[in-house]
Amino acid sequence: MSQRLLKELSAASKEVNQAINKLFDNRLEPTKLYDASKHLIEAGGKRLRPFLVLKACEMVGGNREDALPVAAAVELLHTFTLVHDDIMDSDDKRRGKPTVHTLWGTPIAISAGDMLYAKAYEAVLSSLRPSKVSPRRILKILSLITEATISICEGQALDILFEERELISEKEYFNMITKKTAGLLETSTRVGAIVGGGNAAQVRRLGRYAYYSGLAFQVIDDYLGITADEKILGKPVGSDIREGKRTLILIHALTHATEAERNQMYSVLGRGDATPTEIEEVSRIIDSLGSLDYAFKKAEQLVAKAKRQLSPFLSSQTKEILLNLADYVVSRKY
Amino acid sequence: MSQRLLKELSAASKEVNQAINKLFDNRLEPTKLYDASKHLIEAGGKRLRPFLVLKACEMVGGNREDALPVAAAVELLHTFTLVHDDIMDSDDKRRGKPTVHTLWGTPIAISAGDMLYAKAYEAVLSSLRPSKVSPRRILKILSLITEATISICEGQALDILFEERELISEKEYFNMITKKTAGLLETSTRVGAIVGGGNAAQVRRLGRYAYYSGLAFQVIDDYLGITADEKILGKPVGSDIREGKRTLILIHALTHATEAERNQMYSVLGRGDATPTEIEEVSRIIDSLGSLDYAFKKAEQLVAKAKRQLSPFLSSQTKEILLNLADYVVSRKY
Repeated sequence: MSQRLLKELSAASKEVNQAINKLFDNRLEPTKLYDASKHLIEAGGKRLRPFLVLKACEMVGGNREDALPVAAAVELLHTFTLVHDDIMDSDDKRRGKPTVHTLWGTPIAISAGDMLYAKAYEAVLSSLRPSKVSPRRILKILSLITEATISICEGQALDILFEERELISEKEYFNMITKKTAGLLETSTRVGAIVGGGNAAQVRRLGRYAYYSGLAFQVIDDYLGITADEKILGKPVGSDIREGKRTLILIHALTHATEAERNQMYSVLGRGDATPTEIEEVSRIIDSLGSLDYAFKKAEQLVAKAKRQLSPFLSSQTKEILLNLADYVVSRKY
Repeated sequence: MSQRLLKELSAASKEVNQAINKLFDNRLEPTKLYDASKHLIEAGGKRLRPFLVLKACEMVGGNREDALPVAAAVELLHTFTLVHDDIMDSDDKRRGKPTVHTLWGTPIAISAGDMLYAKAYEAVLSSLRPSKVSPRRILKILSLITEATISICEGQALDILFEERELISEKEYFNMITKKTAGLLETSTRVGAIVGGGNAAQVRRLGRYAYYSGLAFQVIDDYLGITADEKILGKPVGSDIREGKRTLILIHALTHATEAERNQMYSVLGRGDATPTEIEEVSRIIDSLGSLDYAFKKAEQLVAKAKRQLSPFLSSQTKEILLNLADYVVSRKY
């Protein structure tokens, strides 16, 4: 990641945090619910999605200030899905901190997620200045946010249901991550471009840029889930294997394994009590089948496709940043 | 309930069901998620909230057809909160049927609730005709729906947190049910009046009518939870006592009980394994303290207040229906 991208991400992160904090200023009761709602936001995160909103707005010549409420909305929506996903997946840690349901219990965590989702709409409805953004554009933004959420619900359900099945095809996998991850990234650049006054072609191309980057992002996420350093990653390595999550890597490995290897893998996948040695053994089989390399190359191809979407845009610092960001997706270590 | 009200409720129910079904026409995958999402809607329900939307629209001279998407949205929002509440409260039954999480498991039930909430926005955003309702009115409707949801989350969290505390004041109780129940009823008539083109005073009065009726509705709900016939009610009688839910009745009883009675009550309240005999004994103490009568009279006063809100409206069949509906709140048996 270039120094410039790093600096811009950090600056955007501060602006977005301020926009989010404003939404939590007035209401304080019950404190437990609000503490639970803010926990994951305060625990950190890269703020990639709001960054995409702001950059897409800039790419079409818009004023980034105008896009801040929408950037906040997209981050709130993302956080809501993480809070609920952590309950569904029984994950204890996220961003290096205990998850919301671990700290406040499942009932409050469900409510906190619901609250964050409602706050996403509140961000757009209460803070977008109609003098800057027309009511029709605001309605379009709300529609895109709503459709993205419906897709995320479908994607998360597919993800859960996949764990009950033995074989998932690569096509089914990409359909699932499109809905669960890439869709919201695509929506982020689209709503940013809409706030900025972009035309239909600009909105579409910036959307596709984020979509392909998003697919690559998820593939790399799965990759890091097996190869990363646990301390850097902030969550237990190998938990995907322990949960039996059907990642691209696992799909490739299961398709190319011998029957003996496949049986050995199935005996560990999804077994909550699998030992570290068993997890390591499965990782070794996966590596020997070239599945890690396969996934990494796929991610590189997707990033190239993402970058090509930006060709028609004139050179600018913002464009450089977006190209650099796409490269970062495959070079990141956590 | 008058024959006319019954007939109108049933007719509105059919129209609203059609409007909701339209929203579930196109997307079918994953089937399990959509089946889980539709389950509680198909299990029945009075459709009181959408009915209030339609009637409020009529009260200000609007066309009820125009209000149907908003009526559907309010019912979807209500259903979403029920699905999540049932998980939080570990309730097995609702509307005489097993709850969503009982049938599909907690992860899918959380997703189904999220989906229903997103669908509420979709109902407004995809089906309201901008030729009939201006974008600014649509944005106002979405704001009210969003604020109502935030209140419901706060109310549900308060409800959960109250169970950890020994004494709750009547004021705290009414604050909780305002947020959890009456707020959405108030929002229902307000958004209906806005779609219908009502002025600010009409929107406010119709809102207050539903608000006071809603408070009465909740008080009676708690009342029926202790006094009703289980088969008619469709859920276990006494579960509020078993869960230690701080209802107006229980608050009154705990405030007026002798120390011995209070201790006896505390030894049963919130104990999941309380026997039917213990539950009955607590019910007997509650009755002997006049707490049931107290709650019932309170509900009657609230209904009178609700009806007074409609005084400035000219006589009409719709007004008669709303007055009759308020009376029904205290006369209903389930």
